Amino acid sequence: MKILKTIEELKEIRKTINLSVGFVPTMGALHDGHISLIKQAREENDVVIVSIFVNPTQFLPGEDLDKYPKKDEADKKICEMCKVDYVFMPEISTMYQKEEVLIKAPNISYILEGESRPGHFDGVLQVVLKLFNLTKPTNAYFGKKDAQQLALIQQMVKNLFLDINIVPCEIVREKDGLALSSRNVYLNDTQRKDALLISKSLYQAASLVGKGEKKSAILKAKMYEIMKNLEVEYIAIVNRNFNQIEEVELKNTIILVVARFGNTRLLDNIWL
Amino acid sequence: MKILKTIEELKEIRKTINLSVGFVPTMGALHDGHISLIKQAREENDVVIVSIFVNPTQFLPGEDLDKYPKKDEADKKICEMCKVDYVFMPEISTMYQKEEVLIKAPNISYILEGESRPGHFDGVLQVVLKLFNLTKPTNAYFGKKDAQQLALIQQMVKNLFLDINIVPCEIVREKDGLALSSRNVYLNDTQRKDALLISKSLYQAASLVGKGEKKSAILKAKMYEIMKNLEVEYIAIVNRNFNQIEEVELKNTIILVVARFGNTRLLDNIWL
Repeated sequence: MKILKTIEELKEIRKTINLSVGFVPTMGALHDGHISLIKQAREENDVVIVSIFVNPTQFLPGEDLDKYPKKDEADKKICEMCKVDYVFMPEISTMYQKEEVLIKAPNISYILEGESRPGHFDGVLQVVLKLFNLTKPTNAYFGKKDAQQLALIQQMVKNLFLDINIVPCEIVREKDGLALSSRNVYLNDTQRKDALLISKSLYQAASLVGKGEKKSAILKAKMYEIMKNLEVEYIAIVNRNFNQIEEVELKNTIILVVARFGNTRLLDNIWL
Repeated sequence: MKILKTIEELKEIRKTINLSVGFVPTMGALHDGHISLIKQAREENDVVIVSIFVNPTQFLPGEDLDKYPKKDEADKKICEMCKVDYVFMPEISTMYQKEEVLIKAPNISYILEGESRPGHFDGVLQVVLKLFNLTKPTNAYFGKKDAQQLALIQQMVKNLFLDINIVPCEIVREKDGLALSSRNVYLNDTQRKDALLISKSLYQAASLVGKGEKKSAILKAKMYEIMKNLEVEYIAIVNRNFNQIEEVELKNTIILVVARFGNTRLLDNIWL
């Protein structure tokens, strides 16, 4: 495994690769969710590149950029164990210049996460586009947990005619149901326990749908009830285009939850 | 020479090309300025692709999108004579989808042309990025007449780490000095004659610089005097970063003029 620190190194290496490339962009602090993406990339490609870059442009002022968990040494070990070929770990100053062309995410970036974090997705698309252009992947792997991010990246690939196959990957959970997130380390014991109600509410909604319930309002009411002691930022029931829907459409519905625990926002969702 | 109408055709063809590709993006109505770009591309590359696409997103409401000159048959002939390999002539509906990721040009897009035509450069960068991703050129050719556009495209290539060499090409002029432009056809006889004062004022400024004059204010005053009967939108003296400068810096200065003739805006400039 080789650690690449500069764009020049990455470009030089990339030129020599004529095989399929699987790319997993991350902000580090790798957990089993990331590992599942990396493993899938390893299975499906000749060469695997993982990037570790805490991208400043996707954080809003006052967000957790400065305290975002950094675990470079552990991350490298994990990549090595997963038989990654190249880990790209650039400095901010090499990824961004003084003047920058910006990417404006389209309409669905203004709702839900985009409403809570205006500009967040612009920063995500900007860094992902840069990384795509550098790594030129055959396949790029993204978790379904960041469902809206995934949809926007798919949109960008389509709009900009990028020759990249975006591979959506299943959410990985703790045994008790909590969706894995690098931000879970921020939770204290009480919050960690309370956070279980998020996935519980999603399972409950899915189970109600299984029993024939289709009305979004009823499903949401049930979920709010389960999470009544949490600071729920939103529950949204949307189709794959991220339009809110009044009734669940089978195989075309995502239920999304965001809840706050102090300064920590946890996202979770379920694809029906 | 092959005419490609769809993205699928272009993608299919592009996959088969392993040689150097020269790309000349145009909006059609080809004149000797375009021809000089195409000829240079022909000399410097194995394969030449010209695109002809009147890009709607770079026109502002009320601008000349609908009446922009269309000369498809003549354009094809010109391309054939210049030994172009592929002409890409897509429909608007294939280039744009319902939802679109937008490109926000950086700071220098808000001055001069960007001030007169807010959003214009966002549209330019959007379509150029799409075309770059489709044609994957080794070299892409742009005229210096659209100096600010050229600077922004160079900025985008740098920001987004595109593996494309941008080739700036000299302005081509009529024998009497008028810079070639597809919009020159809008001019009536009087306007056509008056338009000569633009290049005349630029030559005069260059000549003054040659005699040792460095002060932008003095150069501008002289130019305004020459063009006193024209509707001058702006004269700007900038360095290569498009910062306005008080004194000419040799080999790092562009003098830009925009003048209006009825609804027709004519641009011209000189690189010192």
